[in-house]
Amino acid sequence: MGMADPRAFPTGLSVRRTIRRNVYSGPTAGLAPGFVQANLAILPQVLAQDFLQFCQRNPKPCPLIGVSAPGDPGIPALGEDLDIRTDLPRYRVWRDGAAVDEPEDIVRWWRDDLVTFAIGCSFSFEQALVENGIELRHVTCGCNVPMYRTSIATEPAGPFRGPLVVSMRPMKPADAIRAVQITTRFPAVHGAPIHLGKPELIGIADLAVPDYGDAVPVHDDEIPVFWACGVTPQSVVATARPEFCITHYPGAMLVTDRRNVEFAIM
Amino acid sequence: MGMADPRAFPTGLSVRRTIRRNVYSGPTAGLAPGFVQANLAILPQVLAQDFLQFCQRNPKPCPLIGVSAPGDPGIPALGEDLDIRTDLPRYRVWRDGAAVDEPEDIVRWWRDDLVTFAIGCSFSFEQALVENGIELRHVTCGCNVPMYRTSIATEPAGPFRGPLVVSMRPMKPADAIRAVQITTRFPAVHGAPIHLGKPELIGIADLAVPDYGDAVPVHDDEIPVFWACGVTPQSVVATARPEFCITHYPGAMLVTDRRNVEFAIM
Repeated sequence: MGMADPRAFPTGLSVRRTIRRNVYSGPTAGLAPGFVQANLAILPQVLAQDFLQFCQRNPKPCPLIGVSAPGDPGIPALGEDLDIRTDLPRYRVWRDGAAVDEPEDIVRWWRDDLVTFAIGCSFSFEQALVENGIELRHVTCGCNVPMYRTSIATEPAGPFRGPLVVSMRPMKPADAIRAVQITTRFPAVHGAPIHLGKPELIGIADLAVPDYGDAVPVHDDEIPVFWACGVTPQSVVATARPEFCITHYPGAMLVTDRRNVEFAIM
Repeated sequence: MGMADPRAFPTGLSVRRTIRRNVYSGPTAGLAPGFVQANLAILPQVLAQDFLQFCQRNPKPCPLIGVSAPGDPGIPALGEDLDIRTDLPRYRVWRDGAAVDEPEDIVRWWRDDLVTFAIGCSFSFEQALVENGIELRHVTCGCNVPMYRTSIATEPAGPFRGPLVVSMRPMKPADAIRAVQITTRFPAVHGAPIHLGKPELIGIADLAVPDYGDAVPVHDDEIPVFWACGVTPQSVVATARPEFCITHYPGAMLVTDRRNVEFAIM
């Protein structure tokens, strides 16, 4: 139930069908290499219009790659035979802003008014960075990427509002420039960085104290590079305290049938 | 002979024909807006092969946009009715590494073995930056861009060797990221920055003391952004001390018939 052999999961479809059998509940990083993974937010229809508008007003932290019809557990654009109720390793169920369950499927929590939002994640551009020979420090350290709440406000929509959350990857300046070029090609999965250098300019007092994930060392010949992060919509949903919602469990993403390269604009 | 009205110089050809009549010997910045301007190096044919190789090995500081045939004062690819002996406002003539003349034309210095090299300049990408609303501090200050010799060595070829020279423009981090995207589109005119943030990492001890040009203020919410600079080949030629060569006088560039937008790769 813990670690998985990536060779056993060559495609998004094979990942989902395996997870559906409840034989794997771990993190999805490294599974189905080359396939897009997505953050998940499932909300009652009464909130869906506001959340959709929030995503459209904040495309860098909330790049929507798929939205379901109300009550429909499928998202045909993202995968064949996809059932959002069973195909993620683990979920978090929220009531009035508090996590009330962390189940391996959400069949018993499903409602006919639920709308699923799939939001692009940094795994896609991280693959492109690694293929270009750029070190990802959190991968080297075997930990989660460090994430920080910033002093940059998102554009609100209805009850959804709050600070932009960013992920940080330390890089040598020449790699940072190359990383801007590489990630610019992927606007649907956060795109180019939103900041680099001086963290205090975006309200980050101490890089060693991330708000989410794990701290990583930043060497003297490196600068911190910050990307808008898919934790932003989760943070915003938590603040809005909807009467009900479901998200993925951290690290346990939706693995789709779309390929990362499909999302490259050049 | 000093300042010129840009409206009187709508195209590269009109600039060159006016300058040829010896009625203007000032700087070319702002003339023929939208047309490519170039750094100039004129060398005896015996050195031309090595210099060509130097440029090909160092395309970021030495982006060649035109080379003449030996003794030919024209460069058809860069302009109609172009005479390199008369069409720049002012020149510098060098003997054994020392400037010996700063004439308004080089007709009396011309030789049948001279090969002209036209090297892209930052004016092209600066136009794109300004059109994107990015402030150029040296333009705001009404001075020359600050330039620095770095600890980065160029790839040598024959007698041509020496440090990379960079120009520096201070920017807010978000503008620096946008500037990487914009200038990446112009690989033929220096392209993307080669460094940003911490100047000490490339051997620059004090931004307030440039090796060429003028110092500009860098505000607390800004980082310095460094581009490979067309002064590099001039610095390298000066170090090589050829028995004879001619360059443009600083700021008095070759104005071509090519448009900046032609050099955008997207």
